[in-house]
Amino acid sequence: MIGTVTRRVRVAVDAMGGDHAPTSEVRGSLQALSALPNDLDLVLIGRKDRIDEITKDLTLPPNLTIIHAPDVVTMGDEPATIVKSRKESSLYIGLDMMRQGQVDAFVSAGNTGAVMATATMVCGRLPGVSRPTIGSFFPTQTGQPTLLVDVGANVDSKPRFLHDYAVMGSIYTEMMLGISSPRVGLLNVGEEEGKGTAVAQEAYGMLKTAPINFAGNVEGRDILKGTVDVVVCDGFEGNIVLKFAESILGFLKSRFRDFASRSIMNKLLVGMFTPVLRNVLRGMDYQEYGGVPLLGINGVVIIGHGSSSPQALENMIRRAVEMVQRDVNGKIREVLSPRSPSKVET
Amino acid sequence: MIGTVTRRVRVAVDAMGGDHAPTSEVRGSLQALSALPNDLDLVLIGRKDRIDEITKDLTLPPNLTIIHAPDVVTMGDEPATIVKSRKESSLYIGLDMMRQGQVDAFVSAGNTGAVMATATMVCGRLPGVSRPTIGSFFPTQTGQPTLLVDVGANVDSKPRFLHDYAVMGSIYTEMMLGISSPRVGLLNVGEEEGKGTAVAQEAYGMLKTAPINFAGNVEGRDILKGTVDVVVCDGFEGNIVLKFAESILGFLKSRFRDFASRSIMNKLLVGMFTPVLRNVLRGMDYQEYGGVPLLGINGVVIIGHGSSSPQALENMIRRAVEMVQRDVNGKIREVLSPRSPSKVET
Repeated sequence: MIGTVTRRVRVAVDAMGGDHAPTSEVRGSLQALSALPNDLDLVLIGRKDRIDEITKDLTLPPNLTIIHAPDVVTMGDEPATIVKSRKESSLYIGLDMMRQGQVDAFVSAGNTGAVMATATMVCGRLPGVSRPTIGSFFPTQTGQPTLLVDVGANVDSKPRFLHDYAVMGSIYTEMMLGISSPRVGLLNVGEEEGKGTAVAQEAYGMLKTAPINFAGNVEGRDILKGTVDVVVCDGFEGNIVLKFAESILGFLKSRFRDFASRSIMNKLLVGMFTPVLRNVLRGMDYQEYGGVPLLGINGVVIIGHGSSSPQALENMIRRAVEMVQRDVNGKIREVLSPRSPSKVET
Repeated sequence: MIGTVTRRVRVAVDAMGGDHAPTSEVRGSLQALSALPNDLDLVLIGRKDRIDEITKDLTLPPNLTIIHAPDVVTMGDEPATIVKSRKESSLYIGLDMMRQGQVDAFVSAGNTGAVMATATMVCGRLPGVSRPTIGSFFPTQTGQPTLLVDVGANVDSKPRFLHDYAVMGSIYTEMMLGISSPRVGLLNVGEEEGKGTAVAQEAYGMLKTAPINFAGNVEGRDILKGTVDVVVCDGFEGNIVLKFAESILGFLKSRFRDFASRSIMNKLLVGMFTPVLRNVLRGMDYQEYGGVPLLGINGVVIIGHGSSSPQALENMIRRAVEMVQRDVNGKIREVLSPRSPSKVET
């Protein structure tokens, strides 16, 4: 822990979120409980019959509570309607427990739009935050990951939203990765001031005076280069770049498969080299990062891929615990709240 | 050639464009002339003293003309000012020759913004084209490249511009790659209609009735998957994705270097596997594609990377020759011209 006092954290896990729910969720929760016996109290929320199927032969730890939620949110649910139509779902129940202070954090591998919309409606925003945002870490050449923010929470972001993503991304990176005064770049089509869309140009002006270490514009190539620690953008291009990046591993695998299929010799070569490839391409497997934070919500929310493995779920729970222990939200409140001396006029 | 009559094409090459100018330009031109002796008349434009240094010991082919241009456009030049301040440059002279019909095509590895702005001002747009655009090919899992368009010619594109990129990209892909009725997707953050920015939503409506094979929205991951043949987007996100993609190879190389540096055994393994890697990663080397077309200009313009090799220059010249021989611009005029029966109302 960096400069914070360790305390027990109560995390609610949406057992019905992911594609492999509740298996990944239950296994990931048990792994996290076993890894963090002194830090974690865990509430697993979902269809009790389904959870029992997985846990029936196991001895459950005392710091695990299972809460039955009869309803399940699906990928087809309209995000804005969950708070009305799915009050009996694990998603709604977990977030409502956080609003009431019964848990400190909420973790879900469910429909990102649904989690985001429901969290915003149930828990509200931190004071001074124009829009909650979702950031995602990218591996870089330097070995130190870069946070891209926003990766899809909001499209058509106004300059003020980009300002807030920058501030929250900077705080998150500083407090979670221990990077002091993280360099923040604005994603653009050229380095010079005055480049890009009207929104990017206006945001550049706001970022110059924001309480961050602003490094100016960066380009698409700077993400994997690790030129800066935080790259700020609208959720439209952020989501496109994230999904493009996530597809690289599959693209490379298919290339290697094609090559291997051409001859026995090729197949042997690729087989021999597979462990090397796995080693080198690790970190491009976005699973490993285990979820992305929803920043700006009055509460701690970690969202994972639908396809999250038990390992990814464990990582998401660990991240939630750290985010609570390091009080990332306290710092965001301190910097962005209208009553804060360090706030920036809009 | 697909359904067209082969005729001799006159191509002007900007000898002073790239980072390795005029070496790459002169060598690439000579390679192209030797490869296409019956198709090509080539005009090399640039500082004659610099060109002579490279050619002094060579016997030049009869279908090569060298034209002296005393001035040189630099990366620091403001694109909009070239037509006034750099009238003696290879860039201006070459494009003006095309305007006058002295050459059919123009090839440059110079400052993209300068080429684009000068070409638009000197040669004008094809009738009915709202904005000229630049497309770029991406390798895909299917083995068939996907054209991403626009990759940086215009930011803050209006829906009508996206419509025109889609039509021009579709025509280019059909006529240059021989794909009949190319599938065209709109780059977005989700597949459903109604997703994305206000501009994307309005563009979706226009693309549904455009004279193309519209496949709906596609996401960032669909580019390398090869889900569609043409992916349409604003130049802001297109440029960001292109530069991100171009940085993947460097990222992977640095990963393999790090791995190799960890032990002698690793170094041997990576060394042994290098030819395989090269084979598999080919096609991710954007050099190989040899330039991207500037579509919508009243003339044929191929723009290359500043770092273009002689091979890339040769490929650019070949592409220019094909684009003239297949009359891509005639087809664009036919479909987008206001007097055309197949035009779409704005």
